[in-house]
Amino acid sequence: MVTTTWNRHHVISLADFQPDEYDTVLHTAASFREVLSRRTKKVPALQGQVIANLFFEPSTRTRSSFELAAKRLSADTLNFAPGTSSLTKGETILDTAKTYLAMGTDIMVIRHREAGVPLMIANEMDRLETRVGIFNAGDGLHEHPSQALLDLFTICALIDPEKPRLSLLKDKKIAIVGDILHSRVARSNIWSLTASGAEVHLAAPPTLLPKLFADFVHPQQPFPDKKSNSSTFPSLSLTPSLPHSLTPSLPRKLFLHWSLEPALQNADFVMTLRLQKERMTQHLLPSLREYHQRYGITRERLEACHPDVKVLHPGPVNRGVEISSDLMDDPKFSLISQQVTSGVAVRMALLYLMGSGKS
Amino acid sequence: MVTTTWNRHHVISLADFQPDEYDTVLHTAASFREVLSRRTKKVPALQGQVIANLFFEPSTRTRSSFELAAKRLSADTLNFAPGTSSLTKGETILDTAKTYLAMGTDIMVIRHREAGVPLMIANEMDRLETRVGIFNAGDGLHEHPSQALLDLFTICALIDPEKPRLSLLKDKKIAIVGDILHSRVARSNIWSLTASGAEVHLAAPPTLLPKLFADFVHPQQPFPDKKSNSSTFPSLSLTPSLPHSLTPSLPRKLFLHWSLEPALQNADFVMTLRLQKERMTQHLLPSLREYHQRYGITRERLEACHPDVKVLHPGPVNRGVEISSDLMDDPKFSLISQQVTSGVAVRMALLYLMGSGKS
Amino acid sequence: MVTTTWNRHHVISLADFQPDEYDTVLHTAASFREVLSRRTKKVPALQGQVIANLFFEPSTRTRSSFELAAKRLSADTLNFAPGTSSLTKGETILDTAKTYLAMGTDIMVIRHREAGVPLMIANEMDRLETRVGIFNAGDGLHEHPSQALLDLFTICALIDPEKPRLSLLKDKKIAIVGDILHSRVARSNIWSLTASGAEVHLAAPPTLLPKLFADFVHPQQPFPDKKSNSSTFPSLSLTPSLPHSLTPSLPRKLFLHWSLEPALQNADFVMTLRLQKERMTQHLLPSLREYHQRYGITRERLEACHPDVKVLHPGPVNRGVEISSDLMDDPKFSLISQQVTSGVAVRMALLYLMGSGKS
Repeated sequence: MVTTTWNRHHVISLADFQPDEYDTVLHTAASFREVLSRRTKKVPALQGQVIANLFFEPSTRTRSSFELAAKRLSADTLNFAPGTSSLTKGETILDTAKTYLAMGTDIMVIRHREAGVPLMIANEMDRLETRVGIFNAGDGLHEHPSQALLDLFTICALIDPEKPRLSLLKDKKIAIVGDILHSRVARSNIWSLTASGAEVHLAAPPTLLPKLFADFVHPQQPFPDKKSNSSTFPSLSLTPSLPHSLTPSLPRKLFLHWSLEPALQNADFVMTLRLQKERMTQHLLPSLREYHQRYGITRERLEACHPDVKVLHPGPVNRGVEISSDLMDDPKFSLISQQVTSGVAVRMALLYLMGSGKS
Repeated sequence: MVTTTWNRHHVISLADFQPDEYDTVLHTAASFREVLSRRTKKVPALQGQVIANLFFEPSTRTRSSFELAAKRLSADTLNFAPGTSSLTKGETILDTAKTYLAMGTDIMVIRHREAGVPLMIANEMDRLETRVGIFNAGDGLHEHPSQALLDLFTICALIDPEKPRLSLLKDKKIAIVGDILHSRVARSNIWSLTASGAEVHLAAPPTLLPKLFADFVHPQQPFPDKKSNSSTFPSLSLTPSLPHSLTPSLPRKLFLHWSLEPALQNADFVMTLRLQKERMTQHLLPSLREYHQRYGITRERLEACHPDVKVLHPGPVNRGVEISSDLMDDPKFSLISQQVTSGVAVRMALLYLMGSGKS
Repeated sequence: MVTTTWNRHHVISLADFQPDEYDTVLHTAASFREVLSRRTKKVPALQGQVIANLFFEPSTRTRSSFELAAKRLSADTLNFAPGTSSLTKGETILDTAKTYLAMGTDIMVIRHREAGVPLMIANEMDRLETRVGIFNAGDGLHEHPSQALLDLFTICALIDPEKPRLSLLKDKKIAIVGDILHSRVARSNIWSLTASGAEVHLAAPPTLLPKLFADFVHPQQPFPDKKSNSSTFPSLSLTPSLPHSLTPSLPRKLFLHWSLEPALQNADFVMTLRLQKERMTQHLLPSLREYHQRYGITRERLEACHPDVKVLHPGPVNRGVEISSDLMDDPKFSLISQQVTSGVAVRMALLYLMGSGKS
């Protein structure tokens, strides 16, 4: 089905993804999307293989998407329920992973509250010279690569449904709005979107802007002073200096803003992020209502964008907070349903690529 | 397999079920019951389709029955666990349903504590012009149509195993005993059983008699006075006036009693209902012991019934409360096991009919 | 695949297992282990059959192993989650089992905190003249037969991978170390290992030595005095008198020790048992550290054993308590991963033998 090369056992992070790897995922997902439109939405690609969903941090939505992707590839699935697990009996996470390895699991889909757990498990699996694949389904504040890849597929497939590819986003303007500081979704999206050559604009209240991204920022450019007024602070236009080894040929265009307006101006896509309600008890936010007033996406605010602007959200949405409720339900603007549908196709593609690399 | 017509996308309520629809379900369930007696109890009818069990109100027993029915039709199943779901993150029920829709779910089986939730979701799915089917697996005090249909199948298949059909119940006397006020099972059963032409007799303590059924009752007939003595109060013989549009040609024979005796007299079937223990803390019942003394079904009480009387219960039974323990285990009287077996066949039939309507 | 006879509907206990039954399990597991090494790790042996995992006591690890075994035999699986079950609604365990029976379950895998529950259910299933098989997945302090059989398979297959058989263990010395008093794993292992003709040496602190095994001990031989010093107490060499009906021809060699040294001396295999941390609050143990100092298995302690000694543990391991952490990860000594792998093959074998007996 796919003629391009794919050499990854694991999908942990998009930081070192190369353009042809993005394109391989996009092509493969496009062919699986076609499978999903059939009455019998299954292919025998991974028959007899076992995919274990180890969701140490629970998530029905993401787990269902992975489970469905696995079943449509005809794999057998195992669900690990942390509440009733050996972890409460004092077993380490690595020992849990090794148990599923020894049972004959082919791919482990891992979600964990702590950044780095999937990588730690992948390293151990490689050290043991196993052929098991580790799929990061979200680790702490680090990354959520399948979410970023389904976002990428959703917008590329909107532009060219037949041949979604990375280069379609070149020179598009994409705004990412919300709690960027605590968002593994944003982190993964920044890697994929800047790799495409798009202009990526981050907009957030100062308390929710990443200090973590300091290493994205060129040293000559000072990080915005947190004490200055967020709405008047000028937007920064920074070209981050990335580790040389990764993608030296890729100029990355990343911009940070403390107000919404410069990010939305002529934007082609607006990606909103889920706001965790516990941010309020952490005194990072005054109230949901004030957040919506200053950073919520509404029909009025979209008027500054490109006329064909589309809005995305990784779900679940706090209606009336990140996005106004009527906008969320308006198919002219909202890509939220398409994101969910893309999620199954993209996860099928990634599981297929990981699983096929084994034979 | 089935030549009769079936036009329902959704199964929400039996209130507007027509006699030929009941017969279609009964015929189809009979052929699936035959499948279940084989060693390989599967058919490929729904291969590649996805059935999501969204049990907002947990129920292992009913969920297992639906899951098994789906698997025996070769569908893929997804289980939604409310404890670990996005609902705790503030997502609305409709958004949850739309997420499963976008993943490609073909049928959603929905159980919820609130009456009306499955209908609300079905209406939204129709408004969005989707082809997804909604199956009400119990909503608040409203309805539990698959339970009533499996009860119907159980008694019709007892009378004529080869050709179970609605008309077999014409002029049978069926008693429904217990907490009718809070029973969605009773509500659905009243629709199906009165549609068959059977005499349906409801018996309950006054505190557990439905005010909700006032609209069943002909206006000329006053509702029994709650203050009079329940055991001496004469039984009412009412022909309810139903909405004209529904089944104008069907005379429905429904009788209400505050004591057990008139309901059991010559009864062919006695349907008992589960008593929720929280009714006591709500001061609707003095004690389980007193309930059993006055409304519990025992061998002695069955002597007033037809000699071939059978007893049903939707499960799980509080042994020694609704039914005496020895009676429950006596295959001469108890149809409880057959009900569970019928449940898988009837749910296969309904999922099959809903799923086939899509192609 | 298997030519030997097998007449068991149920697998409840190893107390009455005969040598040829052990060999049948070992042969069958060896052929399934071969299946597991293929890319497509499935056989259609139990297609269309239903295996219900009724884990009244939760265990993700064991449940996953059974679920995977069932899926690789192409059976459909149902998982019973006690937290959301009818049991909280007052249903008895037997009624729960009868519900799964009536749904058409072919094999029920049962784990329960109370000893005797699987046997009670098996007896009821037989009384009802059903053909359902009951598989004890651990009942209280009683037995855990599949764990003992996977331990047996692991060590026999190490000695002769092609033809694992019981007689390979004749005259081997096997030490079982740890909380024998509370271990259903030890109890099942004692039956299988002594049946093989191996010398079985139990070593535990006096507070964790079984009074339950008094009936293993020949009446002429007094049970060790609990008040004497454990480390100096001479090891007993007892040939237990077993019920005549069982295996009169089998001499069983079982030895009890209150210190580790005599058990480890020249041992071929050391089986460690999981230490429940609640034993400390029960004042049966001073501390985990002291336990490790006196009974923990370390590289140094293994020097007294046979040079090729191997260490087993049923998992999950408390690292640094039952076994030192580095030893656990050393493939020269540790068979822990192989045990997990064997678990799937052995459970496939048992489910296959139980399921095939039905046709």
